[in-house]
Amino acid sequence: MPKGHVSLVGAGPGAADLVTVRAAERLAEADVVLYDQLVPGAVVDAWAPQAYRECVGRRAQGPPCPVETVVSQLVGYARKGLAVVRLHQGDPGLYGRVADEILALIHAGVPWEWIPGVSAMLAAPAAAGIPLTRRSAARHVWVTTAHTTDGVGLPRVPKDPAWTGVILMGRDQQTTIRDVLLAQGWDPNTPVVVVGAASQPAEVVYKTTVRGLPVSIPDFLPTTVIVGAAAEFPVKEVRPPNSVKGSMDKD
Amino acid sequence: MPKGHVSLVGAGPGAADLVTVRAAERLAEADVVLYDQLVPGAVVDAWAPQAYRECVGRRAQGPPCPVETVVSQLVGYARKGLAVVRLHQGDPGLYGRVADEILALIHAGVPWEWIPGVSAMLAAPAAAGIPLTRRSAARHVWVTTAHTTDGVGLPRVPKDPAWTGVILMGRDQQTTIRDVLLAQGWDPNTPVVVVGAASQPAEVVYKTTVRGLPVSIPDFLPTTVIVGAAAEFPVKEVRPPNSVKGSMDKD
Repeated sequence: MPKGHVSLVGAGPGAADLVTVRAAERLAEADVVLYDQLVPGAVVDAWAPQAYRECVGRRAQGPPCPVETVVSQLVGYARKGLAVVRLHQGDPGLYGRVADEILALIHAGVPWEWIPGVSAMLAAPAAAGIPLTRRSAARHVWVTTAHTTDGVGLPRVPKDPAWTGVILMGRDQQTTIRDVLLAQGWDPNTPVVVVGAASQPAEVVYKTTVRGLPVSIPDFLPTTVIVGAAAEFPVKEVRPPNSVKGSMDKD
Repeated sequence: MPKGHVSLVGAGPGAADLVTVRAAERLAEADVVLYDQLVPGAVVDAWAPQAYRECVGRRAQGPPCPVETVVSQLVGYARKGLAVVRLHQGDPGLYGRVADEILALIHAGVPWEWIPGVSAMLAAPAAAGIPLTRRSAARHVWVTTAHTTDGVGLPRVPKDPAWTGVILMGRDQQTTIRDVLLAQGWDPNTPVVVVGAASQPAEVVYKTTVRGLPVSIPDFLPTTVIVGAAAEFPVKEVRPPNSVKGSMDKD
């Protein structure tokens, strides 16, 4: 791999071993890792102990770094001939700021690649044991984020029971989610699963309904809300933090 | 990890190094790997050369194994005390048959776990350099599959330009996709990106419009169709197979 490049990498949902093998390889070769606040330090510790690291993402208690600052860092480090990894929580293409980063890298003529990752939209269902789609039941999925900079609430979402909804970054917006869904005419008894910190040590899974929102999720835990018939899959009850599906221990 | 269990594992989009580290570890420990037809043999070769392997998924040229056969194999091998990996293309929770498998494993009292993977819904945008969401532009995503056993076409999908659509397994359904979207009132000039075999050696990426469908994708390549304003992201033109974004070589 030539030096002086940027790898835009999905860090996965937080567990160090849910990065892809390719991501782990790029991290092991990295000189610099610029990472989102929501990427646990354990991921960088595990795979890039040698790298200079810097948090550039949006912070839970404050504004994100301006995207202009992030892209100037990406370009600057690459132009010094360094191997740069830009580590996005989950997958870069879902609610990251990767579009701005790609455009800046192209403009600057810096070589780049994009390594996809496991989004919380896939890891949260896995944590809860809730397939997003099922034969003869849930057939389609809508995905949105409750975390917007412009104050816009949920869009009008498909209400057909054949659709499963996934709302990312929903921890602080659960009351709004409930109110907007009810205002859109959803049945208050529609099943809901709320997953905090999917795959991480603090993982929590709650089963409830639209009416039952909000549930209590500790501060700073990235939270995914799954809405629809798919969420009534009869696998799990409310689980204490870090308990495990089936009867198998996590390692 | 105790023996006599089943790991439901996302194989990712096809490149051997786009499995997660956890998936690679389970494959290395596996006695038996039961895999979908769409999971390239290279993935199993790379990580589970020691395992007995068997294809149990839906075949391009024929019906899938009945799910009852698959689950009886999962249960049977686990009860023999073997470490069984059920390898699903992409992520198990999106258009796999993992729901049936989980219910059967619970019924049989077989320990199981679920390891999420990188779905083509994330790997195809990465291959094309097309973020599914962008600040001030695409804010939400809908996902569906063109491959149904009951002959149902596309559902009514959100037509707001703030929504990006992802249609999985769309290779043979592109004409239907075009006709249904036009019948739903979509602008024929809506941008579309079609990705065949994302991340695999045969990868192809085409930019077109709703009107421009279908594009020619070789037989047997799993195909993802991305629809909406997000698909006009100005990164890539039509690329020949296996060329690479930026100026960086894949390894």
